[in-house]
Amino acid sequence: MSTVLLLSGPNLDLLGIREPEVYGSATLEHHVATFAEALGEGYAVEHVQSNHEGDIVDAIRGARDRCAAIVINAAAFTHYAWAIHDALAAYDGRIVELHISNPYAREPWRNLSVISPVADGLICGFKGDGYRLAAMAVRGLLA
Amino acid sequence: MSTVLLLSGPNLDLLGIREPEVYGSATLEHHVATFAEALGEGYAVEHVQSNHEGDIVDAIRGARDRCAAIVINAAAFTHYAWAIHDALAAYDGRIVELHISNPYAREPWRNLSVISPVADGLICGFKGDGYRLAAMAVRGLLA
Amino acid sequence: MSTVLLLSGPNLDLLGIREPEVYGSATLEHHVATFAEALGEGYAVEHVQSNHEGDIVDAIRGARDRCAAIVINAAAFTHYAWAIHDALAAYDGRIVELHISNPYAREPWRNLSVISPVADGLICGFKGDGYRLAAMAVRGLLA
Amino acid sequence: MSTVLLLSGPNLDLLGIREPEVYGSATLEHHVATFAEALGEGYAVEHVQSNHEGDIVDAIRGARDRCAAIVINAAAFTHYAWAIHDALAAYDGRIVELHISNPYAREPWRNLSVISPVADGLICGFKGDGYRLAAMAVRGLLA
Amino acid sequence: MSTVLLLSGPNLDLLGIREPEVYGSATLEHHVATFAEALGEGYAVEHVQSNHEGDIVDAIRGARDRCAAIVINAAAFTHYAWAIHDALAAYDGRIVELHISNPYAREPWRNLSVISPVADGLICGFKGDGYRLAAMAVRGLLA
Amino acid sequence: MSTVLLLSGPNLDLLGIREPEVYGSATLEHHVATFAEALGEGYAVEHVQSNHEGDIVDAIRGARDRCAAIVINAAAFTHYAWAIHDALAAYDGRIVELHISNPYAREPWRNLSVISPVADGLICGFKGDGYRLAAMAVRGLLA
Amino acid sequence: MSTVLLLSGPNLDLLGIREPEVYGSATLEHHVATFAEALGEGYAVEHVQSNHEGDIVDAIRGARDRCAAIVINAAAFTHYAWAIHDALAAYDGRIVELHISNPYAREPWRNLSVISPVADGLICGFKGDGYRLAAMAVRGLLA
Amino acid sequence: MSTVLLLSGPNLDLLGIREPEVYGSATLEHHVATFAEALGEGYAVEHVQSNHEGDIVDAIRGARDRCAAIVINAAAFTHYAWAIHDALAAYDGRIVELHISNPYAREPWRNLSVISPVADGLICGFKGDGYRLAAMAVRGLLA
Amino acid sequence: MSTVLLLSGPNLDLLGIREPEVYGSATLEHHVATFAEALGEGYAVEHVQSNHEGDIVDAIRGARDRCAAIVINAAAFTHYAWAIHDALAAYDGRIVELHISNPYAREPWRNLSVISPVADGLICGFKGDGYRLAAMAVRGLLA
Amino acid sequence: MSTVLLLSGPNLDLLGIREPEVYGSATLEHHVATFAEALGEGYAVEHVQSNHEGDIVDAIRGARDRCAAIVINAAAFTHYAWAIHDALAAYDGRIVELHISNPYAREPWRNLSVISPVADGLICGFKGDGYRLAAMAVRGLLA
Amino acid sequence: MSTVLLLSGPNLDLLGIREPEVYGSATLEHHVATFAEALGEGYAVEHVQSNHEGDIVDAIRGARDRCAAIVINAAAFTHYAWAIHDALAAYDGRIVELHISNPYAREPWRNLSVISPVADGLICGFKGDGYRLAAMAVRGLLA
Amino acid sequence: MSTVLLLSGPNLDLLGIREPEVYGSATLEHHVATFAEALGEGYAVEHVQSNHEGDIVDAIRGARDRCAAIVINAAAFTHYAWAIHDALAAYDGRIVELHISNPYAREPWRNLSVISPVADGLICGFKGDGYRLAAMAVRGLLA
Repeated sequence: MSTVLLLSGPNLDLLGIREPEVYGSATLEHHVATFAEALGEGYAVEHVQSNHEGDIVDAIRGARDRCAAIVINAAAFTHYAWAIHDALAAYDGRIVELHISNPYAREPWRNLSVISPVADGLICGFKGDGYRLAAMAVRGLLA
Repeated sequence: MSTVLLLSGPNLDLLGIREPEVYGSATLEHHVATFAEALGEGYAVEHVQSNHEGDIVDAIRGARDRCAAIVINAAAFTHYAWAIHDALAAYDGRIVELHISNPYAREPWRNLSVISPVADGLICGFKGDGYRLAAMAVRGLLA
Repeated sequence: MSTVLLLSGPNLDLLGIREPEVYGSATLEHHVATFAEALGEGYAVEHVQSNHEGDIVDAIRGARDRCAAIVINAAAFTHYAWAIHDALAAYDGRIVELHISNPYAREPWRNLSVISPVADGLICGFKGDGYRLAAMAVRGLLA
Repeated sequence: MSTVLLLSGPNLDLLGIREPEVYGSATLEHHVATFAEALGEGYAVEHVQSNHEGDIVDAIRGARDRCAAIVINAAAFTHYAWAIHDALAAYDGRIVELHISNPYAREPWRNLSVISPVADGLICGFKGDGYRLAAMAVRGLLA
Repeated sequence: MSTVLLLSGPNLDLLGIREPEVYGSATLEHHVATFAEALGEGYAVEHVQSNHEGDIVDAIRGARDRCAAIVINAAAFTHYAWAIHDALAAYDGRIVELHISNPYAREPWRNLSVISPVADGLICGFKGDGYRLAAMAVRGLLA
Repeated sequence: MSTVLLLSGPNLDLLGIREPEVYGSATLEHHVATFAEALGEGYAVEHVQSNHEGDIVDAIRGARDRCAAIVINAAAFTHYAWAIHDALAAYDGRIVELHISNPYAREPWRNLSVISPVADGLICGFKGDGYRLAAMAVRGLLA
Repeated sequence: MSTVLLLSGPNLDLLGIREPEVYGSATLEHHVATFAEALGEGYAVEHVQSNHEGDIVDAIRGARDRCAAIVINAAAFTHYAWAIHDALAAYDGRIVELHISNPYAREPWRNLSVISPVADGLICGFKGDGYRLAAMAVRGLLA
Repeated sequence: MSTVLLLSGPNLDLLGIREPEVYGSATLEHHVATFAEALGEGYAVEHVQSNHEGDIVDAIRGARDRCAAIVINAAAFTHYAWAIHDALAAYDGRIVELHISNPYAREPWRNLSVISPVADGLICGFKGDGYRLAAMAVRGLLA
Repeated sequence: MSTVLLLSGPNLDLLGIREPEVYGSATLEHHVATFAEALGEGYAVEHVQSNHEGDIVDAIRGARDRCAAIVINAAAFTHYAWAIHDALAAYDGRIVELHISNPYAREPWRNLSVISPVADGLICGFKGDGYRLAAMAVRGLLA
Repeated sequence: MSTVLLLSGPNLDLLGIREPEVYGSATLEHHVATFAEALGEGYAVEHVQSNHEGDIVDAIRGARDRCAAIVINAAAFTHYAWAIHDALAAYDGRIVELHISNPYAREPWRNLSVISPVADGLICGFKGDGYRLAAMAVRGLLA
Repeated sequence: MSTVLLLSGPNLDLLGIREPEVYGSATLEHHVATFAEALGEGYAVEHVQSNHEGDIVDAIRGARDRCAAIVINAAAFTHYAWAIHDALAAYDGRIVELHISNPYAREPWRNLSVISPVADGLICGFKGDGYRLAAMAVRGLLA
Repeated sequence: MSTVLLLSGPNLDLLGIREPEVYGSATLEHHVATFAEALGEGYAVEHVQSNHEGDIVDAIRGARDRCAAIVINAAAFTHYAWAIHDALAAYDGRIVELHISNPYAREPWRNLSVISPVADGLICGFKGDGYRLAAMAVRGLLA
C-alpha cells in the first residue's frame, strides 16, 4: 500500500463556494474524493489543506520516508513561496504540480512557478478533472 | 465518432532514436498508438508530424468543423511560432498542450509558451505517459 | 449593525514602541479605537493582527457573509503575499487598503502592492490619522 | 482662515459628462463644492483646473506663502509631468495626492506617480467621495 | 550574561538527514551546540527553528530588550520574506546573517537577500563552520 | 607551514586615513597584523595590495602550488574585474571573499560580485574584525 | 455636413522650412489643403496646430458632440503626452493617427505611441501623401 | 503596366469564416478584389497567401526586377519572422505594411514588427478598408 | 552683433527664493546678468523663462535665422519633453545644455536627458557659475 | 570519404546579386565551390539552401549517421529558429556556425544566436573567405 | 600657489594623431598647455596620462593633501572603472569631470559615468575648448 | 614583410597548466608557434601577453603604423575593458577576435564582447586550432 500526499494551498477551501462559474461547483472534498477514487486500490491518500505556508512545508517534511508521491496544488504560494521549493527539493519521492486553472493564461505574476523546477510533471487548466488526471499521473510515475 | 487531431512539432520524429536516456526508447509511433488506445472507442485519431510550422498551421485549419479536439506537442515551435497561436485561437474545439519534458524546469527560453494562452489545459513532464494522460484529458473535456 | 474587519499585518503590534519619531507614539490599540470611534454607531469592529500570512488569509475567509467591509494594513505582506490577494479577490464586500507611511515614497520594493488590484480604494501616508480616514471611507462605500 | 489650493489636471472638466458609469454623474463643480463643505469653517478653497501642465506649475508657485495645503488630482499628468514634481518639491505646505479611480489597479503606465515622492499622503479609488476624504485629511494634517 | 537569539528558517531541521554530501552530516542540534560553545561563557543561546515566517517574526519581536544580538539563517525566507526584514529593522541589537552555502554562487533568485540591508554583517559558504564564525562575529560586535 | 595569500584591492591603502568614522581608524597594516595573529602558528601570511587589477591577477597566479588559501578583499574590483574571477577560477586552493563594509546594503552596483561564484565563502560587514574572522575561516577550511 | 478636426502637434509648423530633404518641401498649409480636398464635399475641416499639449487637449474636448472624426499627427507628443491619450479616450467619434515619417523605423523612444491604444487606425511613413490617405480613411470610417 | 505583389501571411485564408464580429464578414478574396479595383488601370496584382514563412520569402525574392511594389499583411509572422525582414531589405521596390487590426492596441508581443524597419509606410486598424487605402498608398509611392 | 537665446525651464523663477542652501541665494535675474556680462561685447542676450513646454518650443522656433546660439537649462523638462528635443533638432545654431546641479548624481529619472542628443555640449553641477561657463562656451563655439 | 553538410539559410541564394558592395560579388555557388575546394580530398560536400526552416531541420535530421560535420550559415534563422537549435542538439557530429558578416557588430536582435549554444565553434565577419576558414575548421575538428 | 591635477585616461595620448576630423588636430600636450594658461597665475598644473587604471588611482591618491582640485578626462575608464570612483570619493578636493565629445549623444554604454556621482561638475562636448572651460570652472570652485 | 601583433589577455599564460581537460595540454607558447607557422613566410609575429589592461592598450597603440593586423584573444578583458575597444577603434589595420572556447555557449556575462563592434571578424570555440585558423584569416584579410 503506497501513500500519496495531496497538498492544497491557500483559499482552496473556498472551492465550490465562491465564483462557481469560474471554478465549478465542486468542493475541495469532492476533488479529494475524485483523486482517491482515481488512484484506486493499493493507494492511500492523505490530504492537507492550509493557508499557512509553514504547514505545507511541515507536511512535505513529514512525507519523507512515508509517502511515495506528493501532488501539490499550491495556489498562490506557487508564485513566491521558495520555502516550499526547498522542501520539495529535499523530498525523495515523486512530485506532481497541479492547478485547476491554467496560470500561464492569466496575469504575468502567475507565470512564475517556484514548484516547477523541482516537480516531475505538471497538469493544469482542466478544472476539477485535473484531480483525476493527477492521480493517473501518479500511478504512471510509481508504476 | 469524434476525431481528435494529434500534432507533433519539429524533431519529434527522432523520438526513440536520439538520447533514449532522456526521452525514453519509445518511438513517436508508439506514443501515437498509446494515445489512440487511451482515447478508446468512439474516437478516431489523426496524427500530423512536421518540421514545418506552416504544415502545423495548415493542419489546425483543416481540423475546423471536423475535429473535436487538438492535442499539440509543438516542441521548439512552442516558444516562438505565433502563427500557431493565431491558428489555435481561431479553432473552435478543445485544445490540450502536451510536452514530454517539463519546459519550466529547463532553459529560460523554454519558459514562454505561445500555446498556453489559447489552450484549455497543459500536461508536461510525464515522458511518454503524457500521451495517455492527454487522451484522458481530452475525454474529460469532451464528456 | 454592520461589522467591519480591520486587519493588521506583521510588526504592527510594535507601533508606539519602536521608532516613535517615525511612526508616532500611538499604539495599535489606540489606532483601533480611533477607527471604531470614527466609524461610529451602527458599526461593529473586529480587529485581527498577526505576523502569520495564513492568519490574515483565514480572517479574510472568515469575514465572508459576515463583514460588510475589510480595512487592511498588510504592512510588509503588501508587497509579496499573493495568497492575501487571492483571498481578497474571493471576498464579496468592500476593501480599503491602508498604510501609515506612503510606500510609494520609499524603497522600490515597496512600490508593488498585491492588494491594490483588488481594493476599492487606498489611503496612505497620513500616519495615525489614516485610521480615521479609512473609517470614513468605509462609511462612504457602505452608504 | 487657511487657504487650501485644489488642483485638477487635464480632462477633469469632463467629469459628469463622459462615461458616467465609470466616473459617476457628478461634475467637477460638484466635487469642488463637496471638498469645500467638508473642509468646513476656517478654510477657504481655491480651485484651478487646467489641461496645461504649465498652469498647474504656475498655480503651485502662486500658492507659496499663501496656501496652507495643496490637494492635487493631476489626472494624466500624474504619470510623467516631472515639472509638477519639482514645483511641489519646492512648495512648503502640506500636499495630498488624490485620484478618483485607483491607478494601481489599471494600466501599467498608471502605476508610476511623479507626485507620490513629494506628497504627504495619497487617497485614491473612492470615486467622488475622495474629495470629502481629502478635505478631512487636510484638516488632520493642518491640525 | 548576554542572550543571543539564533534563528533557523524553513527546512533547516532536515540538516544531517538530507543530502549529507552537500550539507554535511551534522544536524541542526549539532550546529546549535557548536554555536553555543563558540560563544563561550557569558552568553546564553536561545534557538528557534520554524517553517513559519510568522514564528520568525514573533521571535524577533520577542528578542527586543532581552537579546543582545540575533544570528539568523533564514534559509529560503532570505529571498522574499520582507516581514522578517521589517521585524529586523525594528530590532535594536546586533544582527548577523548566516548561510551554510553561498547563495551568491547559486540560482539567480538566491542573489537577493531581504535581510542584508538591515544586517551588520554576513557570513556564508563555510558549511557548518559558519556557526562557529558567526559566534565569534557576535562576540566581536558585542565587545 | 601553510602560506596564506591576503589580497587587498584598490584604495585599501587609504584605510585609517580617510573617513575614519566609516572605515575605522585602523590602518591596513593593522588589519594584516590582526589577520596573521588570528591565523596563528603554522601559517605564514603574504600580503599584496595594489590599485592595479593586473597585479592582483599576477599574485593569484603566483600563489599556485605555493599558497594553501587566498583571502581577497578586492574593493571596487569586486564588481567588474572578471579577470580576477578567471584567475581565481584557475586557482586550486581555498578562497575566502572579504569586505569591511556590507556591499549588499549599499549602492546597487555593489550588489554584483564577480568573486562570489568562485569563492568558498564570504565574510562582510564586520569592519576590521572581518580580518580575524577570515583567518579563522581559513583555519576551518584547511583543517 | 460632417466636421473633421485635424490636429497638428509641436514643430509641425516648420514643415517645408526645415530639412526639406527629409520632410519634403510642402508646408503644413499645403498638407491641410490636401487633406480638405481629399475629404471632398460634405466634409468641413478644422485645423489646430499647437506646440502646447494643453491646446491639443482643449481642442479634443471642444470636438465633442461637434466633430465626427479626429485626425491627429501629434509629432513628439505621440510618445509621452498621456493627457492627450485620456482626452482621446473620452472622445466619442472616430480617431485616425497620422505620422509623416515611420516612427517604428526610427529611434527606440519613438516606438511607443500613447495614441495608438485609443485610435481606430494608424497611417504612417507616406510623407505628405499620408494626409490624402488619412482623409480617405476617415471617409471609410464614417461611411 | 506595373505589377504589385500582395502578400498574405498565416491564417488570413480564414478571413470571413472565423470571428466575423472581429474581422468582418469579407473573405480574403474579397479583400484582394478590393485592392485590385482600388489600384485601378495600369496595375496588375499578384496575390500570394501562405502559412509557410519560406513561401513568403520565396515570393519576395521572385518579385525582384518584376514587381514595382509589395503590400504585405504578414499576420503573425510580423512579430518574429526576421527572414522576411531580410528578404524585404534586399528587395528594391516600394513596401507597404498592412494590418486589418491595430497591433499597437493589442497584446504586448504584437507591438514589435520586424517589417516596419524596412517598410516605406504602414497602414493598420481600418479593417477591410485598409486594402483600399494600401492600394492608394502604392499609387502615391509609385507616382 | 550676435544674439544668444537663454532658455529657462519650469520652476527656475524660484531660484534664490527656495532652498538657498541647495541652489544658492542668487536669483534667476542675477544669473541672466552674469551670463550677459560673461558673454561680453558683441553679444545680445534674450531670456525666456516659462513653466510651459510649448513656450519653450515656440521660443526655439522663433530663434531660427535670428539667434546664433541657444543656451538651455530645461529643468524638469530635460527628462521627458521630447517636443523640445525635436524643436532643437530643427534649429540650425549652436546649442549648450546647462544645469545648476549635476543630474547624473541625483535620482535615476534625472539621468535621461532628451536634450543631450542634439546639444553641442553640456555644462552641469557648477551652481550659479555655470552661467558664466556657458557664456564662455558659447563664445568658443561661435569663434 | 567523409561527407560534410553545408547548410545555407534564407535569402542566401541572393548572394552576388543584391548589395554586392556589402556582401561581395561572389555567388553562393562560388562560396560552395570555395568550401569544397578548401576541404580537399577525402571529403564530399552536400549543400542545402532553403528559405524554409523546416527544410533545414529536415536536412539536419537526414545528416544523422551519414555526415561527419555540419557547417551552417543560418542567416536570419540564426536569431529565432529554435527548431534548428533542437535539431542540431540531436545531431551527433561536429557543428560549425558561419556568418559572412559579423552579427555582433550589427543590430541588437542579431546578437542572439540560437545556434551558438550547440555549435563547436563559430566563424564570422570574414566575408566570402569564411567558407575557406570553415572548411579548414572542419578538417581540424575531424582530424 | 594651488596645484591642480589634470588626469587623462586611456588612448588620449593619441589626440591629434588619429581621426583629426573627429577629435581635432590638437595634441594632448596642446590641451594641457591650454589648461595651464587658462588657469593662470597662482595655479600649478600636474598632468598624468595613463592607459593603466591603477596609475590613475595612484595619482588620485597622491593628490591627497597636496592638490586643490582634480580635473579628470577618464576616457573609456569613465564607464566601468569603479576603482577610480572610489578613489575620487576618498579625495577631499574639488573634482571636475571633462570629456572632449558628448558621451550622452553616443553609444548607450557611454551613458553611464562612474565619475559623475562623485564629481562637483561636468563639462563635455566642447572639443578642445573644454580644457579652457574646465580651468575656469576650477577657478570658480576654488574662489 | 608584414608584422602581425598577437595579443593575449589575462590568465592565458596558464594555458597547458590548468584544467588541461578543458583547455587542452598545449601551452601559450605552443599556440604562438602554431600561429606563426600558419602565417608562413612573409609575416613576422609579435606576441604580447599581459594581465594588465593598460599593457594591452599600450601594445595596440604601439602597433600603429607598424603592424598590418592584430589578432586578439582578450580573455576576460573581452567583456568589460572598453579602453581596449577604444584603442582598437583608433587602430588602422585589420583586427581578428579570437577565443579558445565559445563564449556564446557559456555564462551570460560572457555574451557581451567589447571587441566585436570594432573587429573585422571573429573565430571562437575551436580550441588550439583557432590559432591556425586566425592566421589564415589574417592572410585572407591582408591578401
